Amino acid sequence: MQTTLERPLSDKLFLDDFHVGQRFRSGAHAIDESQIKAFAGAFDPQPFHLDEDAAKGTLFAGLAASGWHTAAITMRLLVDGGAPIAGGIVGAGGEIAWPKPTRPGDILQVESEVLEVTPSRSRPDRGMVTMRCETFNQRGETLQVLTAKLVVPRRPT
Amino acid sequence: MQTTLERPLSDKLFLDDFHVGQRFRSGAHAIDESQIKAFAGAFDPQPFHLDEDAAKGTLFAGLAASGWHTAAITMRLLVDGGAPIAGGIVGAGGEIAWPKPTRPGDILQVESEVLEVTPSRSRPDRGMVTMRCETFNQRGETLQVLTAKLVVPRRPT
Repeated sequence: MQTTLERPLSDKLFLDDFHVGQRFRSGAHAIDESQIKAFAGAFDPQPFHLDEDAAKGTLFAGLAASGWHTAAITMRLLVDGGAPIAGGIVGAGGEIAWPKPTRPGDILQVESEVLEVTPSRSRPDRGMVTMRCETFNQRGETLQVLTAKLVVPRRPT
Repeated sequence: MQTTLERPLSDKLFLDDFHVGQRFRSGAHAIDESQIKAFAGAFDPQPFHLDEDAAKGTLFAGLAASGWHTAAITMRLLVDGGAPIAGGIVGAGGEIAWPKPTRPGDILQVESEVLEVTPSRSRPDRGMVTMRCETFNQRGETLQVLTAKLVVPRRPT
């Protein structure tokens, strides 16, 4: 698998390596107007994500990224080292909130904290890690809070 | 605004037009391998989203779309008429779950149901609609359940 080839296995964490309160910090991603408009054109073509002038008269009061774009960038930051999980980042679901819009020029980073580690009762080879992933910008403003339930393999014995 | 130009205002729903139990159904979107790999390459570059062979040995047992890709397509289907809300679709957040992976060849559609309509106490011009949006494929399998809190304007008096 690519993920395990890129880094030695020992760098990635199994269920057994997680504990409540553990924290991770991702790299950074700078978002600009063209990225915002390209994503919105494909997946969320609404005026406040596509057109600076049209956005002024809306709830967003200016061009803002689709919340799903913020979610997608967050995922990329987690995959690129923000959550070094053996077997990759596999989410079963979670809760998501966007307290503030993502704006052109924002530099996004994700800080994650382990809230819960639960071995599976029916599947001895895996478990669930609940992780709170906060996406913030260069001014420390929280743009997204994702509380994700991740499927994590146990260390092979 | 573009959204109001595309359809007459009367077609779009204000908070006052929503009621619990109201249902909407979106159009359809067919997803293929190249879309799955393009989205994953940009936002979720993990082997089970990028490479058919590498995917076989993983939890997904075959190529699967990123959950965030399913979410993004769901949003597109809602914007394209699946949720005709005056002022557009503006989410404050919600809960998301992916009971089954989205596969190449799947044809996605969204069925939404209004769970709650809550006028704002502090802002007389708007309120919140809680909507359960289920994304399913051509076999009726549920791929995603999103329970979204949407900001919806009241009808101007």
